[in-house]
Amino acid sequence: MVIMSPSMTFQPVLERIAGEIERMPGRGRAADYIPALAACDPRRFGMAVAELDGTVYGVGDWRQPFSTQSITKVFTLALDLAREGDELWEHVGREPSGNPFNSLVQLEYESGIPRNPFINAGALVVTDRLQTRTGDAAGELLAFLRAESGNPSLDFDKEVAASESAHGDRNAALAHFMKSYGNIDNEVPVLLDQYFRQCSVMASCADLALAAGFLARHGSRADGSRLLTLTQAKQVNAVMLTCGTYDAAGEFAYRVGLPGKSGVGGGIIAIVPGRCTLAVWSPGLDERGNSVAGVAALDRFTTLTGVSVF
Amino acid sequence: MVIMSPSMTFQPVLERIAGEIERMPGRGRAADYIPALAACDPRRFGMAVAELDGTVYGVGDWRQPFSTQSITKVFTLALDLAREGDELWEHVGREPSGNPFNSLVQLEYESGIPRNPFINAGALVVTDRLQTRTGDAAGELLAFLRAESGNPSLDFDKEVAASESAHGDRNAALAHFMKSYGNIDNEVPVLLDQYFRQCSVMASCADLALAAGFLARHGSRADGSRLLTLTQAKQVNAVMLTCGTYDAAGEFAYRVGLPGKSGVGGGIIAIVPGRCTLAVWSPGLDERGNSVAGVAALDRFTTLTGVSVF
Amino acid sequence: MVIMSPSMTFQPVLERIAGEIERMPGRGRAADYIPALAACDPRRFGMAVAELDGTVYGVGDWRQPFSTQSITKVFTLALDLAREGDELWEHVGREPSGNPFNSLVQLEYESGIPRNPFINAGALVVTDRLQTRTGDAAGELLAFLRAESGNPSLDFDKEVAASESAHGDRNAALAHFMKSYGNIDNEVPVLLDQYFRQCSVMASCADLALAAGFLARHGSRADGSRLLTLTQAKQVNAVMLTCGTYDAAGEFAYRVGLPGKSGVGGGIIAIVPGRCTLAVWSPGLDERGNSVAGVAALDRFTTLTGVSVF
Amino acid sequence: MVIMSPSMTFQPVLERIAGEIERMPGRGRAADYIPALAACDPRRFGMAVAELDGTVYGVGDWRQPFSTQSITKVFTLALDLAREGDELWEHVGREPSGNPFNSLVQLEYESGIPRNPFINAGALVVTDRLQTRTGDAAGELLAFLRAESGNPSLDFDKEVAASESAHGDRNAALAHFMKSYGNIDNEVPVLLDQYFRQCSVMASCADLALAAGFLARHGSRADGSRLLTLTQAKQVNAVMLTCGTYDAAGEFAYRVGLPGKSGVGGGIIAIVPGRCTLAVWSPGLDERGNSVAGVAALDRFTTLTGVSVF
Repeated sequence: MVIMSPSMTFQPVLERIAGEIERMPGRGRAADYIPALAACDPRRFGMAVAELDGTVYGVGDWRQPFSTQSITKVFTLALDLAREGDELWEHVGREPSGNPFNSLVQLEYESGIPRNPFINAGALVVTDRLQTRTGDAAGELLAFLRAESGNPSLDFDKEVAASESAHGDRNAALAHFMKSYGNIDNEVPVLLDQYFRQCSVMASCADLALAAGFLARHGSRADGSRLLTLTQAKQVNAVMLTCGTYDAAGEFAYRVGLPGKSGVGGGIIAIVPGRCTLAVWSPGLDERGNSVAGVAALDRFTTLTGVSVF
Repeated sequence: MVIMSPSMTFQPVLERIAGEIERMPGRGRAADYIPALAACDPRRFGMAVAELDGTVYGVGDWRQPFSTQSITKVFTLALDLAREGDELWEHVGREPSGNPFNSLVQLEYESGIPRNPFINAGALVVTDRLQTRTGDAAGELLAFLRAESGNPSLDFDKEVAASESAHGDRNAALAHFMKSYGNIDNEVPVLLDQYFRQCSVMASCADLALAAGFLARHGSRADGSRLLTLTQAKQVNAVMLTCGTYDAAGEFAYRVGLPGKSGVGGGIIAIVPGRCTLAVWSPGLDERGNSVAGVAALDRFTTLTGVSVF
Repeated sequence: MVIMSPSMTFQPVLERIAGEIERMPGRGRAADYIPALAACDPRRFGMAVAELDGTVYGVGDWRQPFSTQSITKVFTLALDLAREGDELWEHVGREPSGNPFNSLVQLEYESGIPRNPFINAGALVVTDRLQTRTGDAAGELLAFLRAESGNPSLDFDKEVAASESAHGDRNAALAHFMKSYGNIDNEVPVLLDQYFRQCSVMASCADLALAAGFLARHGSRADGSRLLTLTQAKQVNAVMLTCGTYDAAGEFAYRVGLPGKSGVGGGIIAIVPGRCTLAVWSPGLDERGNSVAGVAALDRFTTLTGVSVF
Repeated sequence: MVIMSPSMTFQPVLERIAGEIERMPGRGRAADYIPALAACDPRRFGMAVAELDGTVYGVGDWRQPFSTQSITKVFTLALDLAREGDELWEHVGREPSGNPFNSLVQLEYESGIPRNPFINAGALVVTDRLQTRTGDAAGELLAFLRAESGNPSLDFDKEVAASESAHGDRNAALAHFMKSYGNIDNEVPVLLDQYFRQCSVMASCADLALAAGFLARHGSRADGSRLLTLTQAKQVNAVMLTCGTYDAAGEFAYRVGLPGKSGVGGGIIAIVPGRCTLAVWSPGLDERGNSVAGVAALDRFTTLTGVSVF
């Protein structure tokens, strides 16, 4: 359902939303499991929209780099799927987890095959497979993000990666557990190093809205070359809609109605297939790990513009 | 993404699909827990598309009434939501279950609040609330289906309702269990009677495609009056996409890419918001309770027409 | 390990324990799910010891009848095992549950076979089977308790049975759930009526200590006739030790070191094989449903006398 | 219940059991997850009984060293409990798990506190704490076993320890997982090295029956010095009875009726408090990881002698 006229410009909508968010009382709390995230002011807010041709609109802190965290899982999924195709789905499922994002329970009942590529266990499998195919999964990701965003200064945050590693026992447990089922190829320390670097990428709303453009363009990259087939692009969007926001995918679909992927750094990207991509950032999280102001801003965006997949 | 031109007619697409399905080897097995379903030939197949204005196209057994079963859960949800509004969501969630459709496990961990309105426990809650508000939930449903489909001969199948009741210990367990948490108002035998009658409605693909039209028309009924607000219609579609096909919602979103709801009678309805509704029937089920030929036909439909929400 | 000399009399030990319990500060809270139990003063306390020959010692409220509740599960188990033998174990397990006493989770994972005869689901199975064999399971139980205790005035409490029935949705859910797996023979309302009457038996510590004597006498009843074989008596004691105190069987074994069975009425029975039986009553419960003063008194008894199976 | 007269000698009983076991048809399969265990002939059999004064009786391969594996968990538990006392129980529970021995599920629901010291997770916690207190947990264990058995040639099997380490992903997952909850002190690789060495100890039935003697002697070591208090010894026996044989503790209590601990190498030790200790070995395992002939032999022993705690 696209009510908005094609000629409408997004800038006034973004400014209206920023005003409303400014007056929003609660904002949740920034993630506090590593110092770099805990230091973020939960009231900061930025939002960007990128049209298919690369035109970007923005408001607030939309050019401020932040820790992308789990948002990168969408990109590594696409990069591995482009190389490997459907074989990937023998190693990771595509069903919602119905459980918190780092649960070991389901993994045990399902013999080491994670439910989907966006829970941590599933993202470890995707990174492991991309690592096997490229020898440098995190580097491959960074190169792709730089190319699509047109921003060569995008980079890892070494301090964040080191912090994640120092608090990485849960992910180490997941990786060893799946390796015990034969579902991890690389040595666990190698995999974790790649994974923590991947999560540490710093990027702004503008960068992310541009970099995710291929999912709104049905698989085509910024330069017109094809990363994913039309069917694959549709499939990645479907997985984002059903699994992209941890244990709140139903709630997100209900409120926002777009494929989306969030990160504990407070960022969220969302896709309007055939129309545009959105990126929003505000570090305060709700109890399920999604940005409070971010979800509210996307909710308002779809309400104000009538843009929704439903 | 709507590739199909608005002037294109659906009839040739349906006929092509029917031909392909005809040559499909496996079809799964009909549900066998009650005699009336077990007697169905798993190779029967019908499909219908209804446009927003009520024009219907069809192929195969598209006018043959079959047992709608869980498909009715969409309609009772809409009927209760129209009356009750958001208060309903304090009694039933909207997250995918990540577990088989009649699981007690999650219900126990979440203190009697079912995960969503499309698992049996959630549907029992919805029927219970509609019963409290109307005094005759099943009658209300039947009246609505007759009005929207324009088919006054639609009716319950008393034999099916009696069979369900005779095999109803699992649903009785669910109802008593939720009542122990205070989440069921009516007496359990009264609720079960309403619920089994609701599931026993016989309708054809043509009937269902027409009856579900309000979800493609953003909440408006066939006569132009409003059942749901635009936002509510969008929300029901979102819940269908994330939770409508038992434990295979991710798979269905991935393959078909439309909000849909299946029943163990072999029927499935699917919504293309703003464009049309689809209904398909073939009694052979896969191991997760969805029609094998039905899912395949919807998959082909979206591939051939380019219609998808993604 | 029996340190106590055979000629030692239990009376001074019981009096010392009663004095210590008198000075114990906290006592927990009486069960409050039915009015008859909620009305009990949590500070009441009684304790009795019966020797093999029927000599009984007692202290405090040891002649006061109370609601025996789950303690009766030991007796129905023995009565059914005496009739049915090992076939019973195809319908109920004998492993600790590792979960709260009325959990549906494990029952679902294990296809309707309850973990052991002392969780509610398992007790329902035992009562169902005894009902099939006798036509009046509760009557059979009552006759046995009257005979063994020598107290013909023992009876059901009709008010308690009615209260249980009015709050019986959880047990109705369990029974319907197991019936859906074919593990319940009788109609659910018939079974529940028998079960709730069984739980409502009123008896005193003196009555229970005498009635449980057959488990200390390796299977022989008070009149010298045999109820269980030596092996069966040993087996019932083993199941009591590993499963008799809800989710605290390990803790009870650790602290008390005797086979025991508790009830939410605040009673506990315990067996010293070859030596004596104990019964204690105090209505205040801990968070796992066991009598606070009751467990403390049994702990003191085994410490003071050196009586323990370990 | 001790029917056997004190003057009776165990030798004829052991020989009768060995003869019966010789004629037993099935024996299960040796553990095959590491080569050293897989190479064992499942039909080998040995059994020993040690009286309180150190007199040992034996039959079959009773002097043949085998891989003790999880049997060592009893000894590290006692060694840590002797040092640390009840504080240990804040880090590991003492309830039966009701789940397979290396389950992560329960660990997650209970925030990193393992259910008991005999599942792998709990044993890792005990070894971790003993390591913190001694700096060499495995060395401490070996010294104790040598002293109690009077056999200075007892040693680790380096090949087995290396094999365990090579297949150690599941245990690494458990350790990292608990460390993420703050319930492991040492670095995971250090802990695993200690743990795998501990499991690799080679000992015979004679060695183990002697080494476990302190549990039959209410805490006193072979030289008369005290390792555990009388209460602690009783408590370790209680934990063995309720948790010592993986997911079959109820079954073991039911059949054998003694505190016992098994290992996947095919060994089992069992305690008759105040009377004697038993050790049996036969490498063929049942589906729950306990020696088939070992359990049968202990079952026969208690039946023939009337020795049982019940």
